[in-house]
Amino acid sequence: MRVRNRKGASELLEKNPQYVILNPEACKGKWSEIFGNNHSIHIEVGSGKGNFVTGMAAQNPDINYIGIDIQLSVLSYALDKVLAAGLPNVKLLRVDGSSLANYFENGEIDQLYLNFSDPWPKKRHEKRRLTYKTFLDTFKEILPEGGEIHFKTDNRGLFEYSLASFSKYGMTLQEVWLDLHASDYEGNVMTEYEEKFSKKGQVIYRVEAKFNKK
Amino acid sequence: MRVRNRKGASELLEKNPQYVILNPEACKGKWSEIFGNNHSIHIEVGSGKGNFVTGMAAQNPDINYIGIDIQLSVLSYALDKVLAAGLPNVKLLRVDGSSLANYFENGEIDQLYLNFSDPWPKKRHEKRRLTYKTFLDTFKEILPEGGEIHFKTDNRGLFEYSLASFSKYGMTLQEVWLDLHASDYEGNVMTEYEEKFSKKGQVIYRVEAKFNKK
Ligand SMILES: C[S@@+](CC[C@H](N)C(=O)[O-])C[C@H]1O[C@@H](n2cnc3c(N)ncnc32)[C@H](O)[C@@H]1O
Ligand SMILES: C[S@@+](CC[C@H](N)C(=O)[O-])C[C@H]1O[C@@H](n2cnc3c(N)ncnc32)[C@H](O)[C@@H]1O
Repeated sequence: MRVRNRKGASELLEKNPQYVILNPEACKGKWSEIFGNNHSIHIEVGSGKGNFVTGMAAQNPDINYIGIDIQLSVLSYALDKVLAAGLPNVKLLRVDGSSLANYFENGEIDQLYLNFSDPWPKKRHEKRRLTYKTFLDTFKEILPEGGEIHFKTDNRGLFEYSLASFSKYGMTLQEVWLDLHASDYEGNVMTEYEEKFSKKGQVIYRVEAKFNKK
Repeated sequence: MRVRNRKGASELLEKNPQYVILNPEACKGKWSEIFGNNHSIHIEVGSGKGNFVTGMAAQNPDINYIGIDIQLSVLSYALDKVLAAGLPNVKLLRVDGSSLANYFENGEIDQLYLNFSDPWPKKRHEKRRLTYKTFLDTFKEILPEGGEIHFKTDNRGLFEYSLASFSKYGMTLQEVWLDLHASDYEGNVMTEYEEKFSKKGQVIYRVEAKFNKK
């Protein structure tokens, strides 16, 4: 997904250091200090315009959330929502998902969300998919033993790929939903893409996958 | 699934010992002898009226197939198809899937198919599902190390359950299809249930799951 550049996005982000992390390298091992408490930390990689991370933060005030996205404009829209809601338990971080081990200590993150990740349907782009094994290496490093990835998408090809990728990596699929919105799953917070694609009649898939021994 | 009793089913089966195994206890470790060659042996547990096992046998003359079902009448309809096609590489066996270790030696079976298994949707019937862990124990025993289960169904709940059950058992999901008929999968042989439910517009799910170390 590419979003049109937003004028002034960069300035908006820089003006809000209470929400937007401007010096990520300095944060490694210090996230509890930054949040000012010892609550669990959950991150979303590829958080887009921030509906999920802000909705989750409102629903779970005792969990800290970090929305991570590589795109400046997208992150600035997420910031709008954080500002509007005035949530103390959300931070935003503009870095690449492949580099997270630079910003988080081993096991510093308690849970990781992937929502509607870019599908990269061509086989030759497999390495760019956020559920490709090199990304899993990174995610495993920053999660604790037994840490989980919760992934949802409407993209059939990416979901098929990801189930096999998690499994071949040695992760355990704890639970799978093949039509989340028709299930009895409670407390679902919709993402922007989820709103859009479920309105078009697309089924939403979800999986909770657990890393095993470190 | 329960099928109406077919008059004369029992006699029909007994009259065709070249296809219907009447003394299964005596066959353990002797299946290559029974088929008269050393080809791989694939079994379908819950083979129903036999479209799949006869279609596969016609498509792959160098593989031996055994259709296994617990219901007499159902097995007699499968026999009609075997007789009509005159296939030398199919046998039919009326036993319960939970007892297969009595009839097959460790590793004697090369591959196992489950197609449209009874879903047993109630949680309290979980143990009856053919992808429940006690069935997996049995299947693992009669398959070789690295042996695979190929499972397809239209039943969303059973498929969700089975993916997690395979994974928690320590099996690896090699490949997953969330809409088999829309995929580029080749050589699919439809079962009776598959014909029926795909005509009604149901999506067909499929997975290939591999057992790891014995
Ligand atoms: C299709 S959008 C989905 C956004 C949001 N999760 C939703 O469901 O509405 C994917 C997002 O992932 C971001 N992204 C893609 N690759 C990334 C990477 N390697 N690291 C961080 N973010 C990434 C993109 O910039 C984009 O905002
Ligand atoms: C829903 S039907 C599907 C038949 C066929 N595979 C198809 O796709 O058309 C399930 C079949 O599994 C058989 N079955 C159920 N439990 C079984 C068990 N424990 N052992 C052997 N067969 C079983 C039933 O008798 C029935 O014929």
